[in-house]
Amino acid sequence: MADINSKLEIGVTTGPIRGSKKIHVGPLNVAMREIYLEPSSGEPPVRVYDTSGPYTDPAATIDIAAGLPQLRRDWIMARGDVEEYQGRAVKPEDNGQLGPDRSGGVPPFPKVVQRPLRAKAGMNVSQMHYARRGIITPEMEYVATRENLGREMLREYKRDGQDWGAAIPDYVTPEFVRDEVARGRAIIPSNINHPESEPMAIGRNFLVKINANIGNSAVASDVASEVDKMVWSIRWGADTVMDLSTGRNIHDTREWILRNSPVPIGTVPIYQALEKVGGIAEELTWEVFRDTLIEQAEQGVDYFTIHAGVRLPYIPLAAKRMTGIVSRGGSIMAKWCLAHHKESFLYERFDEITEIMKAYDVAYSLGDGLRPGSIYDANDEAQFAELYTLGELTKRAWAQDVQVMIEGPGHVPMHKIKENMDKQLEACGEAPFYTLGPLVTDIAPGYDHITSGIGAAQIGWFGTAMLCYVTPKEHLGLPDRDDVKVGVVTYKLAAHAADLAKGHPAAQVRDDALSKARFEFRWRDQFNLSLDPDTAEQYHDQTLPAEGAKTAHFCSMCGPKFCSMKISQEVRDFAAKQNQPVETFVAAEDAEKGMAEMSQVYKDKGSELYLPADS
Amino acid sequence: MADINSKLEIGVTTGPIRGSKKIHVGPLNVAMREIYLEPSSGEPPVRVYDTSGPYTDPAATIDIAAGLPQLRRDWIMARGDVEEYQGRAVKPEDNGQLGPDRSGGVPPFPKVVQRPLRAKAGMNVSQMHYARRGIITPEMEYVATRENLGREMLREYKRDGQDWGAAIPDYVTPEFVRDEVARGRAIIPSNINHPESEPMAIGRNFLVKINANIGNSAVASDVASEVDKMVWSIRWGADTVMDLSTGRNIHDTREWILRNSPVPIGTVPIYQALEKVGGIAEELTWEVFRDTLIEQAEQGVDYFTIHAGVRLPYIPLAAKRMTGIVSRGGSIMAKWCLAHHKESFLYERFDEITEIMKAYDVAYSLGDGLRPGSIYDANDEAQFAELYTLGELTKRAWAQDVQVMIEGPGHVPMHKIKENMDKQLEACGEAPFYTLGPLVTDIAPGYDHITSGIGAAQIGWFGTAMLCYVTPKEHLGLPDRDDVKVGVVTYKLAAHAADLAKGHPAAQVRDDALSKARFEFRWRDQFNLSLDPDTAEQYHDQTLPAEGAKTAHFCSMCGPKFCSMKISQEVRDFAAKQNQPVETFVAAEDAEKGMAEMSQVYKDKGSELYLPADS
Repeated sequence: MADINSKLEIGVTTGPIRGSKKIHVGPLNVAMREIYLEPSSGEPPVRVYDTSGPYTDPAATIDIAAGLPQLRRDWIMARGDVEEYQGRAVKPEDNGQLGPDRSGGVPPFPKVVQRPLRAKAGMNVSQMHYARRGIITPEMEYVATRENLGREMLREYKRDGQDWGAAIPDYVTPEFVRDEVARGRAIIPSNINHPESEPMAIGRNFLVKINANIGNSAVASDVASEVDKMVWSIRWGADTVMDLSTGRNIHDTREWILRNSPVPIGTVPIYQALEKVGGIAEELTWEVFRDTLIEQAEQGVDYFTIHAGVRLPYIPLAAKRMTGIVSRGGSIMAKWCLAHHKESFLYERFDEITEIMKAYDVAYSLGDGLRPGSIYDANDEAQFAELYTLGELTKRAWAQDVQVMIEGPGHVPMHKIKENMDKQLEACGEAPFYTLGPLVTDIAPGYDHITSGIGAAQIGWFGTAMLCYVTPKEHLGLPDRDDVKVGVVTYKLAAHAADLAKGHPAAQVRDDALSKARFEFRWRDQFNLSLDPDTAEQYHDQTLPAEGAKTAHFCSMCGPKFCSMKISQEVRDFAAKQNQPVETFVAAEDAEKGMAEMSQVYKDKGSELYLPADS
Repeated sequence: MADINSKLEIGVTTGPIRGSKKIHVGPLNVAMREIYLEPSSGEPPVRVYDTSGPYTDPAATIDIAAGLPQLRRDWIMARGDVEEYQGRAVKPEDNGQLGPDRSGGVPPFPKVVQRPLRAKAGMNVSQMHYARRGIITPEMEYVATRENLGREMLREYKRDGQDWGAAIPDYVTPEFVRDEVARGRAIIPSNINHPESEPMAIGRNFLVKINANIGNSAVASDVASEVDKMVWSIRWGADTVMDLSTGRNIHDTREWILRNSPVPIGTVPIYQALEKVGGIAEELTWEVFRDTLIEQAEQGVDYFTIHAGVRLPYIPLAAKRMTGIVSRGGSIMAKWCLAHHKESFLYERFDEITEIMKAYDVAYSLGDGLRPGSIYDANDEAQFAELYTLGELTKRAWAQDVQVMIEGPGHVPMHKIKENMDKQLEACGEAPFYTLGPLVTDIAPGYDHITSGIGAAQIGWFGTAMLCYVTPKEHLGLPDRDDVKVGVVTYKLAAHAADLAKGHPAAQVRDDALSKARFEFRWRDQFNLSLDPDTAEQYHDQTLPAEGAKTAHFCSMCGPKFCSMKISQEVRDFAAKQNQPVETFVAAEDAEKGMAEMSQVYKDKGSELYLPADS
């Protein structure tokens, strides 16, 4: 079976996540993952949400030069509202090759679609449009099945949480999905030119999602490594991936990523537009930007971050700030507005942009160009002025049945987080909120995955639908493979903590299964049920490497004599047979024996016996 | 100047934390740390709270065989209410040497105090007793000065936060400290036999504190490494340290730690008592336990975790649980109660224990022996039954003017955290709350410093006074030096996030200074102002190692053309001179130049250009 070492053989990371198996459920073959427990547990496998695509399926053949199967192609064609047409020709500037050095670096994808799809004249192919006309699409059915994972595994049904006005159903039906999309409370990013994607929903009444950012390499001769950044992110749980590439090879790199991505891909088109005008913000034009939107829509990008809320009158508001404008897209548009002393063309041309979006079903991710970049700037006038403009734009997009989510901050102290959520819900009519963290303090560079994970868990609980990850390198440098994994896992646990607190009916199944495994000393189950089985087992083995330790009824923390879990089982017996003599509960011999083994373990390695906090 | 390498020379980690200098403030020479900023900033040094003791003071001579200077000795003697007496003789069992192997491993501390101090007959030497009699002790004065750090550095005075009923003053006076201690809302752990400690307060109206746990090594031949665990923890910010040693050499190891510790030391005496009876819980007796309390009080332990709330009738309540009893102390007492089918002697003898506490000023840390060990068990009947008993015991301790704090959970989903704080405040009359995390999900072993950091930041905001750290090895193994540092820094950032959210007037100074440095590209200041300057600089240098990059007006994330900070400064100019031609804001040449440098940097290292989330 392939594993992450097989990257060397076939270019990208493949192989099952340990202890689990890919399964396909229902008539639409919805991909999920099942974690198998030790027979001694007498427990069924635990079904978990799976974002990793065919790469973790040993039965799948992976060939990045061919791309993934087109899961949605037939669904899209069957609707009869799209047409193939001669797509826009790729220009040198699309790959940043205007300069003297015209060498590509990245080869074009072998099977580039020459004739992309778009809506027939007068048609609208957005999921929102179908939803509002009462149509339940296969995408919506897929989402319903996918979101229900785990629910039927609940023995006694537990709805326990504080949902802050969310409306999470006991069971997700296709009709519920349709209704949420129709109301604009959820989006299903699904560009008709990205048929490889597995449908997923972003909305407050579904599981909280996370996004990972990737970008191209300066020297990108190895296409596989570009694709693998996406594959690696989704392996650990990224629900969507944003390609924030700048500089050279943008177009071809994006093509490779899209053709091999089972998750929706988002971009910030202004970055590429800026490249096309040599990086001079003031030379940006509507024509260049429009051309870039079409270029990316034809490739299949599922959502565009568009900073249309950065209006000329708001820019001076940022002057009072500690850290000004920290959004790159926001600062590019601010510079353009200043240079021309004109209103932003993104705002002026918004309805024209929407026309393009609906022809391909590209969703808006309305960018928060004026988000606070420091605790000092949180929740200020500039930020909220923009937010209310995003609300206005949301309604304009909805008027054309185009899907919308709203980007949010940034750096916000804990006591100001809820105001962000409340104002967003009010200003944007419950359109899904998509936030970066927020970071709850500025003083921990090197640990900002944690400072932001604290804020992310809270705002996710309050109703944010998708959390954009932050890596340990935030503010300092460029994340490597390990940083990306730590960022993704940190955000998965934050999103899961939010699902628990909201009272999502499927959420606690996995916590209960892991805690039960912990209590019963099923160490392998404990590892396999965790978000990062490899790290969990590695940490365990650093102290107790012996195979036997994985079945031992004690751990390295306390040893058997002190083992509270063991004593707890005696307590359970006690409660069961109140009237029997107390000698029943004393199992001194076992303890003796176990302790001897433990002392041996300790002696063998003279290990540092720091004790953990849970003592 | 010594640094962490000097551990090899003199046994423990010494040398200043980079970019900062130890200072001593006021008549009591209160230790603080000042972080010096680049002259270009025109900013004064930033004063921060310092727990690291003389080890970070190049002017101090460190000799662990001699111990630290006795800062508080004269204050204690001057009160005239203590007497020296012939202390309890050390017995072999104190060091776990009852078995065949009598070899010590740890040499006795050379200058063991033969005649410890205790209160004269009928006297009470607790800080609470003095406070209630209207006496302001030097310990209280020291705390007042220490807690005020930073306040006078605030330019425009900012009280912004949600304090959930806390009463944080604009400025801390000695009288305020006295009043908080008298009311039981704060404690100053300060055993009269630990005169080396620098006074600190644990209370909801002071800065949120953190605790780090350490324990002895199985093979403890190297005393310095035992002491260094404490020194390493306080270097990164631990306000107190708990010595949770078990097994061999407990007594002598603790002596070495106490004589060299500038922070209060806490223990769980039942662990050592259990060792003395060969690890058989049911053989524990009041006499053995009492002897252990006196042994440790004479050595100078500042607070004892005592699980007196685990009463016989509550034990069957734990039988319904997913994970039973996860507190080691709690499970030991549960087993004792079951074995004898009698009420806990800790509960029965509570007032006798209190008599001992007040003779040395040892503070209670009333243990939560029935805390939940899983999300499933959070906020259950067993947990809250114990909590209300801890409230009853708090009042009994206060009746004798003995200081008390209350230990809390555990594993708790976000929506159930506040109930823990509210019930604790109600049940325990605002006695300081001291929690372990809580962990907000069970599914991330290997990342539990983060799952618990999320809960810790929230409960700290709600009013918890001290947060007990959790390391990445929690539930899996024994933390090493790196794990301890990660755990401490994670909890420092969580505690700081809580201070910010509560609106602590001194808290935001450091965030503002760091963000200003970030905005002005003062990279070294940004590193030095962070909680972990070494890691911050190392991460930065992985991408831009060149010295020049530390003064460059752009960073590796965006490069100069995209630099939002740079554009923001232009926005500022714009706002300043609304009427001048827009050309003023365009600085294309600089950008050109910077970009060239950047491309060079990229080419040089062909670095992976993932883009960070803050884009």
